[in-house]
Amino acid sequence: MQKFKVFSTLILSFWSINLLAQQVVNLSSPDGNITLKVQNQANNAISYSLNYKKKAITEPSTLGFQLNKPKIDLKNFSIISVDSSKVDETWKPVWGEVSSIRNNYKQLVLTLKENQSAVILKVIFKVFNEGLGFRYEFPTQDNFKHFIVGDELTQFNLAGNHKTFWIPGDYDTNEYLYNTTKLSEIDALKASDKETDIALKSVIGVNTVQCPLMMKTDDGIYINIHEAALINYPAMNLTLDKNTFTFTSHLVPDAVGNKAYLQTPFQTPWRTINVSDKATDILASKMILNLNEPSKITDVSWIKPQKFIGMWWEMHTGKANWDKASGKHGANTANVKTYIDFAALHGFEGVLVEGWNEGWEDWFGNWKEDVFDFVTPYSDYDVNYLSDYAKQKGVRLIMHHETSGSATNYERHFDKAFQFMKDHNMNTVKTGYVGRIIPRGEHHDSQWMVNHYQRVAEKTAENHIMLEAHEPVHPTGLHRTFPNWLANEAARGNEFNNAPNLALVPEHETILPFTRLMGGPMDYTPGFFHFQLNQFDPSRKTRVRTTLAKQLALYVTIYSPLQMAGDFPDNFNQHLDAFQFIKDVPVDWDDTKILEAEPADYITIARKQKGKDNWFIGAITDENIRNTTISLDFLDNGAKYQATIYKDSDTADWQNNPESYKIEKVIVTKQSKLDLKLAKGGGCAISLMKL
Amino acid sequence: MQKFKVFSTLILSFWSINLLAQQVVNLSSPDGNITLKVQNQANNAISYSLNYKKKAITEPSTLGFQLNKPKIDLKNFSIISVDSSKVDETWKPVWGEVSSIRNNYKQLVLTLKENQSAVILKVIFKVFNEGLGFRYEFPTQDNFKHFIVGDELTQFNLAGNHKTFWIPGDYDTNEYLYNTTKLSEIDALKASDKETDIALKSVIGVNTVQCPLMMKTDDGIYINIHEAALINYPAMNLTLDKNTFTFTSHLVPDAVGNKAYLQTPFQTPWRTINVSDKATDILASKMILNLNEPSKITDVSWIKPQKFIGMWWEMHTGKANWDKASGKHGANTANVKTYIDFAALHGFEGVLVEGWNEGWEDWFGNWKEDVFDFVTPYSDYDVNYLSDYAKQKGVRLIMHHETSGSATNYERHFDKAFQFMKDHNMNTVKTGYVGRIIPRGEHHDSQWMVNHYQRVAEKTAENHIMLEAHEPVHPTGLHRTFPNWLANEAARGNEFNNAPNLALVPEHETILPFTRLMGGPMDYTPGFFHFQLNQFDPSRKTRVRTTLAKQLALYVTIYSPLQMAGDFPDNFNQHLDAFQFIKDVPVDWDDTKILEAEPADYITIARKQKGKDNWFIGAITDENIRNTTISLDFLDNGAKYQATIYKDSDTADWQNNPESYKIEKVIVTKQSKLDLKLAKGGGCAISLMKL
Repeated sequence: MQKFKVFSTLILSFWSINLLAQQVVNLSSPDGNITLKVQNQANNAISYSLNYKKKAITEPSTLGFQLNKPKIDLKNFSIISVDSSKVDETWKPVWGEVSSIRNNYKQLVLTLKENQSAVILKVIFKVFNEGLGFRYEFPTQDNFKHFIVGDELTQFNLAGNHKTFWIPGDYDTNEYLYNTTKLSEIDALKASDKETDIALKSVIGVNTVQCPLMMKTDDGIYINIHEAALINYPAMNLTLDKNTFTFTSHLVPDAVGNKAYLQTPFQTPWRTINVSDKATDILASKMILNLNEPSKITDVSWIKPQKFIGMWWEMHTGKANWDKASGKHGANTANVKTYIDFAALHGFEGVLVEGWNEGWEDWFGNWKEDVFDFVTPYSDYDVNYLSDYAKQKGVRLIMHHETSGSATNYERHFDKAFQFMKDHNMNTVKTGYVGRIIPRGEHHDSQWMVNHYQRVAEKTAENHIMLEAHEPVHPTGLHRTFPNWLANEAARGNEFNNAPNLALVPEHETILPFTRLMGGPMDYTPGFFHFQLNQFDPSRKTRVRTTLAKQLALYVTIYSPLQMAGDFPDNFNQHLDAFQFIKDVPVDWDDTKILEAEPADYITIARKQKGKDNWFIGAITDENIRNTTISLDFLDNGAKYQATIYKDSDTADWQNNPESYKIEKVIVTKQSKLDLKLAKGGGCAISLMKL
Repeated sequence: MQKFKVFSTLILSFWSINLLAQQVVNLSSPDGNITLKVQNQANNAISYSLNYKKKAITEPSTLGFQLNKPKIDLKNFSIISVDSSKVDETWKPVWGEVSSIRNNYKQLVLTLKENQSAVILKVIFKVFNEGLGFRYEFPTQDNFKHFIVGDELTQFNLAGNHKTFWIPGDYDTNEYLYNTTKLSEIDALKASDKETDIALKSVIGVNTVQCPLMMKTDDGIYINIHEAALINYPAMNLTLDKNTFTFTSHLVPDAVGNKAYLQTPFQTPWRTINVSDKATDILASKMILNLNEPSKITDVSWIKPQKFIGMWWEMHTGKANWDKASGKHGANTANVKTYIDFAALHGFEGVLVEGWNEGWEDWFGNWKEDVFDFVTPYSDYDVNYLSDYAKQKGVRLIMHHETSGSATNYERHFDKAFQFMKDHNMNTVKTGYVGRIIPRGEHHDSQWMVNHYQRVAEKTAENHIMLEAHEPVHPTGLHRTFPNWLANEAARGNEFNNAPNLALVPEHETILPFTRLMGGPMDYTPGFFHFQLNQFDPSRKTRVRTTLAKQLALYVTIYSPLQMAGDFPDNFNQHLDAFQFIKDVPVDWDDTKILEAEPADYITIARKQKGKDNWFIGAITDENIRNTTISLDFLDNGAKYQATIYKDSDTADWQNNPESYKIEKVIVTKQSKLDLKLAKGGGCAISLMKL
């Protein structure tokens, strides 16, 4: 990725000392606000502590591993050497929220020797203005090559009983609603028990929660713990000791209880702690991206952010079905042709088609290995005709590879499946992992599956195919390294509006950017224009839990280079004036301003269109009305903009009047301020077209 | 496979009755010697009993299942209906020990209803003159479609404390030496403990042994229990109740302890009981082949039995190494060229090359997933040149796909690996599964791996590639259905002569045909001509445990359509007169006569060359001298044959004088008798060329 690096890398080793006797090493962030202290404790444990503006973020937190093979603990260390350096560089992502990213940190590399086994281990700390990233490295060494991790023993010893936005720790799903409690009040089992809409749960224990984990201290400091560059390693959950408010890493096990099979040289994912007294800084941080490796794909010319519609919500609402035997098969030639026509008419690049292939009669719930073959369309779906027709119309079909969790079966069909896509002019695939994983005993978030998702990213890249995965492990910024991996689900999406029980709540989208989105873009599928979901099945008690204006605002507040317009054409056609915002809003940006944010309350974001001078604003609130005034001081000096404001009407609210919206047009400048009035569960979307 | 059926199938339903009240059903073999009694017992269990010439083989033995999902037992049944029929047909195998096989049995189909769950189950019994085969069938039915087997509860309630030839029950290896004890004396843990030459063992328990299981009663009746047509199901081990001499099936579990994931309609493998008062009948039986399905391959013209040599024993003896980094890499271009020359000179079709590809530096013992890619030769191995050179010489390279147990990795590389073979004029592959299986938690003999081996058979068949697998599950006659699947290892092979500890014993080859070979051909790799194995590594204490003449006789006594000449050219060149037998002996036969046999003592077999009038005889003994006279009355009337007799010299024995042999020539006729004198651990090989 050298070609995207606009400033040359500056790495200066500013001290490097042998300090066998020295027990404390300090390092501060470039701006000095964050200080890291690493200590070799009396019991030979290595610990780190983190301060922000002189307030403790983590008290001394120890590091280490318990290995299953060789059967040793890596807990008691001698410091062999300490090296330090700093970096300040800027690079350009292939796509993203901004066109240029600064990577500015100070680095400390501790080389440690475990006292009994003499195993050599390094810990690399990078202190950014935004927080801390650290990872373990196992260098090549004599007498220690292959090893099996039983547990990683990384601690995050927090300084208080913070307010926390969490979901239950789980090996197989991250599609939970967020819970907001004090650390001391976490009860992951209780939270999981009430989640009756999730088909497959593997909850870990009462005190274990998932990453990214968002917290707020009583002092108003925002803390986020996550991981970056999750490669060849299981996902990290966090288990809380409520006496000390110490989280310890809990890795997802494989079928026999091991966590990771590793070989030197090896580097773990980064453990990340974002910290700031401004919530907006958390959302603006690019630290996790900076901790990932540059793109492994050299020719990225074929990678294009895009918007799409799909034969999808019809199935969720009961209008149609994936299964041909149902008698209301959605993905038939005639239906999909209308989607292609609609996409072409309104300028969408892609049409996702789910239920196009044989296997849906018997695909879920039986841990069945050979369900789909990824190349056999249903007899009423003329894929040759439709792919040709789409091509004529300047549209592409988006492939759907539901695996039903059977990753082994999918891998056996890789080559033919991707060739089939190329033969039919498709360059984007949506994968799905609904169901228990095969290899049986593995989990959605275990090392084998982490490697599987990466294999899919690599295989699709080889074939110039863009990827979004549903039901995968939480993202960790790998879209920098594999920029064809546009998006993931990996959280409770907009589709849960249709879940019968716990479903969604209006605050959900105000938490997601502080949690799930820390790792990367989400295919949230915004754009529902019809709110009572019993249209085709009167027995359904489900409904969408936003206003229509909020559905529009989500295109800005939930960043993704791959955005669906979730509803189906009939419903868009009833609100074509509002639909204009979805047509206009880009999926790639030159700049992003987080104007306001508070987890579980509200978010307002402005973004500048990639390569153009237009801006787009999204503002959302939770279940409360929100009145706010935003300044447009980020606009160009002296320029005028045509603002189109898609807002909740005065009588709108998510429960009683969700479809009520107003569209206003006004000319604005850099000096303008806009008063926004968001209804309960409402939002506001604004396009600012430079005149 | 209709085209191989020479007589039309005769299926006559000779009675079909509804017998809700009837509690006993009897069926006898076509010759009346074997009688089967099926009973609905007082406790609603279904049992079967088997008699042979009015002697009990199995006392009432119950049938059933314990399911994990749905969580029900299938033990208590009502008989819904009983149907009976008989079949007498003859078919021709693609290759084999005989050119035509008679399939003659009476059949009973019981349709059962489990009393609580109302699950419908069938049991199909086929009674042959050679014994019994029975299987379960789960037909399509309402309310019972997918199910997970927790245990199969099939009993074999034996009538006495028989002499038994057994190896320990194990989930991952069948490469044990055989133990000969009374049933009451079985101790599988003790037997396993002494087997220090086996790298990976997963022994089951003190009373569990493997199939095929050979027994002999005090009355001189031979009994063999095995299974046929092992498809989509785990392998069966047998657990003994020493109080009742009852074996119960013990299926190999997967990573989470389940045995099989099934869906109606489903048929289990056949459970087989061969029985006779003649040991030779056991070896001559084609019952297991008859219980397998006809070939799924319609064009079999490309399937050819063959003999081969290989770059292989050099590695086992320390002359060379698989690993290029060892400094004595065997599979280099110059070495392999000499093998091609030798093969061409002596008329061998194939040259196996092990260690040809990158990965051997770090391939074993670490449960590592991505070891080999199956397409990247070492830099000193010019595969393009050698495959061209072989082609010019009328020889083909045989591919080696060692997986190190990582089946997932192999499956990902299937397509490229087989294309690579075709690109290099190779049509035979030897697979290997040395190491712990990946998917981790699966076993060599679990359902997933049984399906994997079948996938390999199917994939190779698609690509017109012949297959032999090393370290797979025990064979069950599937070479009828997949005739490209020529052979397997799946037992302790000749290579174990090189193991430092328990190694081999002279009786081993007299037991194999009664056990392992019941399921199909073995790549035993006979043909060792050099007996002290410290030639290249003086520290080795290993040696071959036969005479040279016995090594020749094994080509007849151990049937395989794929026979290796195991030693390397230098050693063959020292005994080219004896090597002539290996050159002459065919690997496909029109007829086979089991002349004499006693498990653990001796075997003498005569076979008639396919399409020619020549016969070949192999006679082997255990650690004892054996003098025997064989009649040649199977020869053609009035014809003369040039007999070449390769025999132990008068002073030969396996321990002190193994290489001492004599070659005699004599003219024989149908009236001739030959006195054979086998040394300790010796044998005799005879070619009979029609004049």
